Amino acid sequence: MHWQTITIIGVGLIGGSLGLALKRAGVAGRIVGVGRNAQRLAKARARGLVTEVTTSLKAGVATADLVVVCSPVDHIVRHAVAALNAAPSHAVVTDVGSTKASIIRDVERLASSAAKRFVGGHPIAGSEQRGADWARPDLFDGRTVVLTPTPLSANQAVYQVRKLWESVGAKTVMLPAGKHDRILATTSHLPHVVAAALANATPLAYLHLAGSGWADTTRIAAGDVDLWTAILLDNRHEILPALKRFQELLEQLRRAIDARDVRRLKNALRRGKKHRDALGS
Amino acid sequence: MHWQTITIIGVGLIGGSLGLALKRAGVAGRIVGVGRNAQRLAKARARGLVTEVTTSLKAGVATADLVVVCSPVDHIVRHAVAALNAAPSHAVVTDVGSTKASIIRDVERLASSAAKRFVGGHPIAGSEQRGADWARPDLFDGRTVVLTPTPLSANQAVYQVRKLWESVGAKTVMLPAGKHDRILATTSHLPHVVAAALANATPLAYLHLAGSGWADTTRIAAGDVDLWTAILLDNRHEILPALKRFQELLEQLRRAIDARDVRRLKNALRRGKKHRDALGS
Repeated sequence: MHWQTITIIGVGLIGGSLGLALKRAGVAGRIVGVGRNAQRLAKARARGLVTEVTTSLKAGVATADLVVVCSPVDHIVRHAVAALNAAPSHAVVTDVGSTKASIIRDVERLASSAAKRFVGGHPIAGSEQRGADWARPDLFDGRTVVLTPTPLSANQAVYQVRKLWESVGAKTVMLPAGKHDRILATTSHLPHVVAAALANATPLAYLHLAGSGWADTTRIAAGDVDLWTAILLDNRHEILPALKRFQELLEQLRRAIDARDVRRLKNALRRGKKHRDALGS
Repeated sequence: MHWQTITIIGVGLIGGSLGLALKRAGVAGRIVGVGRNAQRLAKARARGLVTEVTTSLKAGVATADLVVVCSPVDHIVRHAVAALNAAPSHAVVTDVGSTKASIIRDVERLASSAAKRFVGGHPIAGSEQRGADWARPDLFDGRTVVLTPTPLSANQAVYQVRKLWESVGAKTVMLPAGKHDRILATTSHLPHVVAAALANATPLAYLHLAGSGWADTTRIAAGDVDLWTAILLDNRHEILPALKRFQELLEQLRRAIDARDVRRLKNALRRGKKHRDALGS
């Protein structure tokens, strides 16, 4: 698989890392970076994250074979539809958004027949850091990328997006968008809300006695506020029930502590340990 | 500072690491390990965590200048009192328990005048792992150890325990036991309850889409169930209000998501990020 031109819209942590990884894989002739800030783009090119840059989405996708939209969740639909309209008629468009159902619904509604060349995607990779400064070529090594094609999606488009991620070391999994959003509400979005509440619950004056446990449990609370606000609101229909379930389990734990109910407390801790041990370190 | 004999009661992750660290520092002539399991003790000696081992607490402390009780929280009082009674009359006894007020109250009640030679301590170090297999000499490097002397504590005892921890690379902080317990309820015990509930809220079938965020946020849920049950019950009077505060902050976040209240949601995430950023990585 070789692409003449791959265009990355949004050269931040994910977009920049993808550029580096594609370059390392040697599967793209040109890697075009599209962004809003000319200075940041120039720096990204100087660092070798992409081979060309432009602030014009239209110009950036004009000769693209494949476009990867790496914008924040609340900009993806607009960028994906613009790319589908401005890119050559063979070009495939995908994204890396942490939510999928509403994005895909809107792209299919707004791009009409061109939407068959769009395939939603979500690499389960990243960190609490933001921006191209943190980009690294191995960000996707061994990671899972969820692809969420719909009955509209062209097989050839799905195939290319799959090959894109495999070329940078990731493995792909196909899921309906709704199922992706339900699972990620629990495995990614809920932890963010919990980490934020835990950090808020801790007075700054207590931090000198915070150890690695607190540091780990709250790490993702350092994530970008705007990015996460958009994710939490977009996927709220799945996050709210997940949050309720968490609140109930937490209240059960609280009651067991309050009642000094050793059996219930141990059972809850044991179940938590079992789930955590199942993931590995 | 040099001790002829330091006795460590409980040669697990903390006790074993302390043995290694003391050996590295070269400040103790003999390092005696006391435990229940002769096989595990023999292994600990073979690995060089301690220089001598015994299953008899009485024999183990018979010539000790300093005794460090590294047992689980619910065994510390018994071991500390036994050590105060059996060790030479100049011997200082300390512990490493994650809770302090009730331990110190009980030791002072049960050991009467010998309690002046006891100083409560708590190294903010460790991990979700358990056992001497994970012991390492640098576990305390740069870490904080809280010491909680009372008006009964002899100055000379406090001085020796401070020197003990400084000799293995830690820094010490003095705090009243009640204040220690209040702060640790939020910075250590609450995160454990939260991590356990979060792991419980995540079906095993979802784990293939759990990324580093979930892994970090739930890591401490892998901790030992018995150790943590004892800690949570012992410090429940401080943990319950901390848990309530967390539940309220979480409910505020839930309501902001439910109401699509962007301003409130961003404010909460921003406050969380500020607290997390204040700790550093």
